[in-house]
Amino acid sequence: MNGNGKIYVIGLGPGNRQHTTPAAIEAIGQSGVIVGYNTYIELIEDLLTDKKVVFSGMRKEVDRCTQAFNYASQGEIVSLISSGDAGVYGMAGIMNEVLMKKGSNIEIEIVPGITAANAAASILGAPIMHDYVTISLSDLLTDWKLIKKRLHCGGEGDFVICIYNPKSKGRQDHIKEARDILLKYKRKDTPVGIVRNAKREKEGYILTTLEHMLDYEIDMVTVVIVGNSHTYIANNRMITPRGYRL
Amino acid sequence: MNGNGKIYVIGLGPGNRQHTTPAAIEAIGQSGVIVGYNTYIELIEDLLTDKKVVFSGMRKEVDRCTQAFNYASQGEIVSLISSGDAGVYGMAGIMNEVLMKKGSNIEIEIVPGITAANAAASILGAPIMHDYVTISLSDLLTDWKLIKKRLHCGGEGDFVICIYNPKSKGRQDHIKEARDILLKYKRKDTPVGIVRNAKREKEGYILTTLEHMLDYEIDMVTVVIVGNSHTYIANNRMITPRGYRL
Ligand SMILES: C[S@@+](CC[C@H](N)C(=O)[O-])C[C@H]1O[C@@H](n2cnc3c(N)ncnc32)[C@H](O)[C@@H]1O
Ligand SMILES: C[S@@+](CC[C@H](N)C(=O)[O-])C[C@H]1O[C@@H](n2cnc3c(N)ncnc32)[C@H](O)[C@@H]1O
Repeated sequence: MNGNGKIYVIGLGPGNRQHTTPAAIEAIGQSGVIVGYNTYIELIEDLLTDKKVVFSGMRKEVDRCTQAFNYASQGEIVSLISSGDAGVYGMAGIMNEVLMKKGSNIEIEIVPGITAANAAASILGAPIMHDYVTISLSDLLTDWKLIKKRLHCGGEGDFVICIYNPKSKGRQDHIKEARDILLKYKRKDTPVGIVRNAKREKEGYILTTLEHMLDYEIDMVTVVIVGNSHTYIANNRMITPRGYRL
Repeated sequence: MNGNGKIYVIGLGPGNRQHTTPAAIEAIGQSGVIVGYNTYIELIEDLLTDKKVVFSGMRKEVDRCTQAFNYASQGEIVSLISSGDAGVYGMAGIMNEVLMKKGSNIEIEIVPGITAANAAASILGAPIMHDYVTISLSDLLTDWKLIKKRLHCGGEGDFVICIYNPKSKGRQDHIKEARDILLKYKRKDTPVGIVRNAKREKEGYILTTLEHMLDYEIDMVTVVIVGNSHTYIANNRMITPRGYRL
């Protein structure tokens, strides 16, 4: 403890330590208290000797932020841990909101990380070299109608589409509906990359098409990248050309 | 040289070494030849002792890839350097395409990095906590009509919009046109964050609105983030709520 508390909201990147930035490691090092979802805390266990660690389960996001706030109010330096980038479907927003709601002026610093779309793209080749949209299929916090509308707009604009949270136990059919919406705008043979556990243990990927993508396993630890009308697959890599003349 | 050549395509992140991953540093360390745009090579000068360095100027992307290919064909390990993430308006696509065109099966590995949108978002607060699109206003390689269409679709879908390459010497008016398109869908007081040199020297940012954004300097080293209909500014931070109940 050193008088003024501070909260770091940290994106660890996809999981593998090789892709975690020095800024993230340093912020953890400076912190006396580490707050996070169990799975992410496990990724950094070796860095936690002598620290107070506050684990918590899924869907406890607000709790975690309140805990971080409480410790920081007592003068602690706290690291709140996200996977990927904390600013992409991570903890950065809700932590800021909790501080505002409390009327607190505790210092907060967001430490960026490599988000799943970029990690997945690096494995597939170069699928997001052109304009892309990032859409989460989770309707826990967002109206499914709005998500569908965004899929339509992404299709209409011939964007590359990066799908986060494609499926969970409670939502098995959203990915099918999403695929069907995209088929209204994109050819059946539009390349699709499915990446599981990008840049961490149990990594795997599939290259397929919009027509056949539902034949493969898609779950909570996958990102799905659907190409635009110029995307192609060659040499087992998915490429969205930017338009250079060769 | 050790027999089989290899090409790493590396994203350094926004610029500041604290945000470059160990994987990127290690790949550079393993390489005998480093190829890149002058400005990016300067960022890693201290890592280049004993390496062959191939500088090149702007708009020489295809040349750079051909050079990388030539050295790798001779058995060298080559690092081709991008800023941010190499897979986002960077060198990953064109390098893959050059290898295909040459019918080469030289090994290629993309090393992901933190892209400008994530770096900028971390400075602003949490503006891209919800579904977002990434659009480049550069029409060197893309038809301006298509770019405009994508702006319409991004507006229509109430996405957060991350604008790369917002302006260059040859394109002063695109950002105005882009703003005018977004005004058809978004309120005048929609928050806008303009981030210059995110996470590197000369960093700066402005929080403003769609109505007033053109009053501020926007150039080649800025990313512009336009909020969705729920984005707000408070405590000098730009927040797009994800929908948690506090
Ligand atoms: C709640 S979001 C968190 C995203 C995270 N903040 C990021 O920036 O990557 C969880 C979703 O991200 C995606 N995801 C996160 N890490 C991943 C990885 N290493 N490989 C594949 N997908 C991943 C999956 O779609 C998963 O359902
Ligand atoms: C050719 S693109 C390269 C993007 C890069 N590959 C990336 O992933 O960030 C160049 C554009 O990226 C944005 N950019 C890159 N680095 C930036 C930074 N540190 N701060 C603000 N904008 C940046 C600017 O919009 C710039 O015009």
